[in-house]
Amino acid sequence: MSTRMPEMRELIDKRDWSRLRRLVTRWPVADVAELLLELDKPDRMIMYRSLPRLLAAEVFAYMDSHEQEDFLRDLTDEQARNVVENLAPDDRTALLEELPAEVVQKLLSLLDGEDLKEARQLLGYPERSIGRLMTPDYVSVRPDWTIERTMEEVRKKGRDSETINSIYVTDAASRLVGSVSLKDVVLGNPADTVRGIMRTPAISVSAFEDREEAADLLERYDLWALPVVDSEGALLGIITGDDVFEIAREETTEDFHKGAGITPLHIPLRDAKPALLYKSRIVWLLLLVGVYLVSGNIISRFQPVITQVVSLVFFLPLLIDSAGNAGSQSATLMVRALAMGDVDSRDWLRVLGREIVLSLALGVTMGLAVWGVARFIGEPAVAVITGASMVISVLIASLVGITVPLALDRFGLDPAAASSPFVTSVADIMGVLVYLSMARWALGLG
Amino acid sequence: MSTRMPEMRELIDKRDWSRLRRLVTRWPVADVAELLLELDKPDRMIMYRSLPRLLAAEVFAYMDSHEQEDFLRDLTDEQARNVVENLAPDDRTALLEELPAEVVQKLLSLLDGEDLKEARQLLGYPERSIGRLMTPDYVSVRPDWTIERTMEEVRKKGRDSETINSIYVTDAASRLVGSVSLKDVVLGNPADTVRGIMRTPAISVSAFEDREEAADLLERYDLWALPVVDSEGALLGIITGDDVFEIAREETTEDFHKGAGITPLHIPLRDAKPALLYKSRIVWLLLLVGVYLVSGNIISRFQPVITQVVSLVFFLPLLIDSAGNAGSQSATLMVRALAMGDVDSRDWLRVLGREIVLSLALGVTMGLAVWGVARFIGEPAVAVITGASMVISVLIASLVGITVPLALDRFGLDPAAASSPFVTSVADIMGVLVYLSMARWALGLG
Repeated sequence: MSTRMPEMRELIDKRDWSRLRRLVTRWPVADVAELLLELDKPDRMIMYRSLPRLLAAEVFAYMDSHEQEDFLRDLTDEQARNVVENLAPDDRTALLEELPAEVVQKLLSLLDGEDLKEARQLLGYPERSIGRLMTPDYVSVRPDWTIERTMEEVRKKGRDSETINSIYVTDAASRLVGSVSLKDVVLGNPADTVRGIMRTPAISVSAFEDREEAADLLERYDLWALPVVDSEGALLGIITGDDVFEIAREETTEDFHKGAGITPLHIPLRDAKPALLYKSRIVWLLLLVGVYLVSGNIISRFQPVITQVVSLVFFLPLLIDSAGNAGSQSATLMVRALAMGDVDSRDWLRVLGREIVLSLALGVTMGLAVWGVARFIGEPAVAVITGASMVISVLIASLVGITVPLALDRFGLDPAAASSPFVTSVADIMGVLVYLSMARWALGLG
Repeated sequence: MSTRMPEMRELIDKRDWSRLRRLVTRWPVADVAELLLELDKPDRMIMYRSLPRLLAAEVFAYMDSHEQEDFLRDLTDEQARNVVENLAPDDRTALLEELPAEVVQKLLSLLDGEDLKEARQLLGYPERSIGRLMTPDYVSVRPDWTIERTMEEVRKKGRDSETINSIYVTDAASRLVGSVSLKDVVLGNPADTVRGIMRTPAISVSAFEDREEAADLLERYDLWALPVVDSEGALLGIITGDDVFEIAREETTEDFHKGAGITPLHIPLRDAKPALLYKSRIVWLLLLVGVYLVSGNIISRFQPVITQVVSLVFFLPLLIDSAGNAGSQSATLMVRALAMGDVDSRDWLRVLGREIVLSLALGVTMGLAVWGVARFIGEPAVAVITGASMVISVLIASLVGITVPLALDRFGLDPAAASSPFVTSVADIMGVLVYLSMARWALGLG
């Protein structure tokens, strides 16, 4: 891309759109989109309108939803219809899903009969469901067809299909019975039947299932496309890896953001305006203020203890934060393992058992370390109190960290919420409570 | 899978290995591997040895590296040779990469001439490089060949290729000049030449590049396979999406773990023994003890201030942790954006400018909220000190959070290290320092 830019720049400066158009027509879609987005708005629109229709639609499909919205605003109705009509059905659903309602209504009014029906149908599936990602453009054949006839069908329908690397086999009632790869068809004997080479049962997924299910299946079976079926097993469409993995990446980003107390942004950081970033960050920061006021309140209740043995304050941050860290480690390990399908919430007993052993070991190590430091500084009583509270608070925090995501998952909620600073803060509070209660009790300062 | 299990279970109980073998031969590899891993060890080995060679190798390739090591230990040399010989070259490299050196030496001694040469060559590429993931099994054609001749080549070489969905076009010096999809070949006119339908220049990647580069290219161009070239542009092999995405998932998991102060595990949580988990967690917990002792030390230096205005302690956790939270939000946003390629470290000036505006807004909001709470509780002086320190410490922490990952990335280091609790803790310390210094100064208690 970068090597071609200077030449492009020159053509753009000369406003030589027809040469530019000829050049970019054979570029990958992603590069054309990037070039367009680098142009000033007026030039961008001239160049965009000069692209062949199909490429224009593909370039449009490549953009982020907020770039698409921007683009649509600068097109006439006629031009917008052209773009939307030429989009692949799954890209069209993705676009309509993201746009504000009034823009969607306007676009739907521009579509004609068949396309409109298809769009309404795909939008009828639940949000975040596989149905929304589906395209009805695929090649299907019958089990008793020969490989030769299959090849003819591929040649006939292939141009309009999203992929022909997988071909799906259905019975007379359109039920999915198997799949064949284009590789097997190409390498097969033309006189053989499809039945002889098809893989059965075909790995498939329901249109109503969550998108994450599709990512897991594609990954598990090393596939690039999955057939989508209804409750009767009838083939409705296919979904392809590019869409599924894009969404998987977005969901991973959401999990990272949740882990740091950020409301998911849904757009790249580069394009996020300060106002959006402010909104996505301030909510958690303020919520946590409430939590820390509880910590502060606990500390102030123990003021007599602190005033009498001021050296206790020295170890306060250590106790608070170590519990928080241990809790956050456990929660992160568990949240990620659940997201990767490495651990199932039905395994909770075994997981919890291991965590008890582990967190005792961690707690004792930490306790000894802290006891050593405190002994070195002086005051044997404070050393014992600090060491002992460390053991207890690391144990409690780890168990909270492991239990909360498991429980959320068990009840069908998003375990990622557990890696948020909320759990760390709850662990912090328990750290304070354990430390100061133990100090009051041990020093007889009730 | 689950629906087939009862039937399988029955055959296993009857030790009817030959029927089992016939049944599983048409299953997807992932399901066969799962069934095997559910069996007791003696049964597992009987069943495994009864599988056809190629399936046995594929099942073996599907397993995790520690499961593979376990498996190899139970095979005779002859059986091990069979498995390793039948592995695809990229799977073989992956296996040899993970095994202990003495096992690798033994396995290499079992391989014969051609395979041995190939294995040594692939292992010669740097760790984490694309060369290690490469397979030399692909179909390549010449630009002046007809589509008909291309189809013949596909039929001849296709069986032994990792994928034939992409076919690569090379010149007489084996330099990569373009690519054609099997779809275009199948749908094309047999008399046309490859030159007429090939995409050029082909998107390719260097064997010495980092694996992440491959994931970015596959994602950007919606590809499933990428050709790998040397510094002269000669085609060396291909890498496929399944390998690349598996590694991308593992690297994402590592980033999650680093963010919580866990040394990456490299094996699924389910299989991690307590001793390994202990090692991966205790290092950071102990390192952070050092950091908190610094916090504690600062607090104890301000003891005269605290003893005189004890209500300052009430807001201490709030001040410390809010700064930490703001810092962790900034660091997480930046680390993920860098990992996704959304932001480039060359953009630092624009990013930093936005962050200053944003963190001032966040700081002022937080400051006002805390000031309000403190006013309500009493002591106007403490309210002003608390509010003002909040503004300053949120500002500093956010800037640290955004700068450290950018700087790490700029110097070629892993930005994910910045989302570790270390940065949060540094922000904590600054929170303490700002708060107590301001209190001492404002209350004239120096």
